[in-house]
Amino acid sequence: MNIYDVSQQAGVSIATVSRVLNGNPNVSEKTRTRVMKVMDELGYTPNVFARGLGLNTMKTIGIMCSDSSDPYLANAIYFLERELRSNGYDSILCCTGTSLENKRQYFELLLSKRVDAIILAGSKFVEMKDKDNAYIIEAAKDIPVMLVNGCLNAPGIYSTVCDDYTAMYQAAEMLIRSGRRHILYLYTSYSYSGVNKLQGYKDALDALGIPVREELIHQCAKNLQDAKELLLSLSGSGLTFDAVMTSDDSLAVGAVKYAHAKGLSIPDDFSIIGYNNSILSYCTDPEISSIDTKIEALCTTTVNTLMGVFGGNNVPGKTTVAADFIQKQTTNF
Amino acid sequence: MNIYDVSQQAGVSIATVSRVLNGNPNVSEKTRTRVMKVMDELGYTPNVFARGLGLNTMKTIGIMCSDSSDPYLANAIYFLERELRSNGYDSILCCTGTSLENKRQYFELLLSKRVDAIILAGSKFVEMKDKDNAYIIEAAKDIPVMLVNGCLNAPGIYSTVCDDYTAMYQAAEMLIRSGRRHILYLYTSYSYSGVNKLQGYKDALDALGIPVREELIHQCAKNLQDAKELLLSLSGSGLTFDAVMTSDDSLAVGAVKYAHAKGLSIPDDFSIIGYNNSILSYCTDPEISSIDTKIEALCTTTVNTLMGVFGGNNVPGKTTVAADFIQKQTTNF
Repeated sequence: MNIYDVSQQAGVSIATVSRVLNGNPNVSEKTRTRVMKVMDELGYTPNVFARGLGLNTMKTIGIMCSDSSDPYLANAIYFLERELRSNGYDSILCCTGTSLENKRQYFELLLSKRVDAIILAGSKFVEMKDKDNAYIIEAAKDIPVMLVNGCLNAPGIYSTVCDDYTAMYQAAEMLIRSGRRHILYLYTSYSYSGVNKLQGYKDALDALGIPVREELIHQCAKNLQDAKELLLSLSGSGLTFDAVMTSDDSLAVGAVKYAHAKGLSIPDDFSIIGYNNSILSYCTDPEISSIDTKIEALCTTTVNTLMGVFGGNNVPGKTTVAADFIQKQTTNF
Repeated sequence: MNIYDVSQQAGVSIATVSRVLNGNPNVSEKTRTRVMKVMDELGYTPNVFARGLGLNTMKTIGIMCSDSSDPYLANAIYFLERELRSNGYDSILCCTGTSLENKRQYFELLLSKRVDAIILAGSKFVEMKDKDNAYIIEAAKDIPVMLVNGCLNAPGIYSTVCDDYTAMYQAAEMLIRSGRRHILYLYTSYSYSGVNKLQGYKDALDALGIPVREELIHQCAKNLQDAKELLLSLSGSGLTFDAVMTSDDSLAVGAVKYAHAKGLSIPDDFSIIGYNNSILSYCTDPEISSIDTKIEALCTTTVNTLMGVFGGNNVPGKTTVAADFIQKQTTNF
């Protein structure tokens, strides 16, 4: 049900429906009444951002990401821009860093440039405290705000997320079924997706009767050298582990280097699972089994949802995309 | 010699000098004459972009790159934005792809948004044919255009380049002095920096009396798997080589995989040199000796030059930054 159905049924152009929606006075009272009646009959509730055929629009979308040098975000930007361009939209990108203050400033900058929508790429934009998200929720009253791999529930905000929980749950389950009992878990941050990934790991262990041990769960900077040293130090301190799951491929690369340094055979002695299936997971020998978070699908869905919003369609506030486990050489399932 | 010297000498504020430069009628004839006289005495030639203290400016710089998912460009964007922000400038970024038509459209988009300058990041923006660069040269009459690792010689265009020629020359020289005689050269494109790199390789061989053999020079897609297969196929066809130099780290990762597949010992049997010293060169075991192209210095210099232009300084049209060879585990010099 969208603006096209209304125009068809009312026998007027889409531009006319759009004018009615936008309160443009350049529509006769008779036409306005007919269009309103059709909307009522069809049960059509336009979202506030319906812009019909792009009247009064700059045809420009703002994209924000915290760090364009992160391989995952760099890919997201690439796909978002490509999809927007194929829909006739230009995009401008701001790399915000991670401080809330900077993120807010860049958000204001984009609003001041009168973009048609803002896409927040990556899970770093949703803060723990509600009040720190107020600027996003407020802006979403005026223009659509799209979250890629983050989730906020408010009018005008549309989230597209990867099902990180299930991906991690299933990966942990496969490790356990293949005989692993001491699975280390390395994560980089407690973002929206970080929390879901960790919960998937914990619930899988629980479900299969393996105790969740806090000494096997460690935070680590997103840096392969740090990950290698952390594993060497944990192993040196007497901790036993036969597999490692990571929230990012860079940590998994560090795990491969750790195994090489210790002379462990992968995957016979030691299994490794990365996350994001980025180019890093293909650089090592052996190549790292990793979870393909379907960045391209996530970005395509985000842009399709946005176009639906512009088209006046009723679109869901949250869309979930399933991840894929990519078996390479660091696991033997 | 800059706008500050003029204001000092003329005993007027910088804003007043700026008004004179901008032809603002809000300056008395007497003051205008005094300022002009001082400029004349000091031999001060303002560049056309001098904007004094940021009068009439959006304080926004447009950045264009061909592909934000390339690790080198992703880093460049990161450093450019950080430097611009620390100078009080916002930045908006466009990822253009490689087609000339798209690059031109994005360039127009940035101009229409009234940015204060445009930074073209990466060597993909300078085309072989002069007429294809005309849109850049034309725009540089109105706002400064900064090239990062590309070079165009025209008024209003400021290039900051890495000395790729010398970096490759010296790396090839070290390989030869360490006993290598059959040095394969893999490159991804004939861009400005691509041409300079290859010339450095050729000239080093020439200078040390090693014949340059075209069958040792090959183009390859920027893809580690393609590089690995290319080396396997060259080796399979009977070509002998004891080292490989690459124009990008991704090709060098492919070379490590080739050596592993063939059971070659690195660096005893086979030396590998990457380019860009990106995270990819740290992912492999052994880690890849690579050329640090000083992206951060290149970006800092670009932004400093731009601020000099805004400040009315006379700045050089071309600045060269030296690269560093980073010895890791795939060479034994």
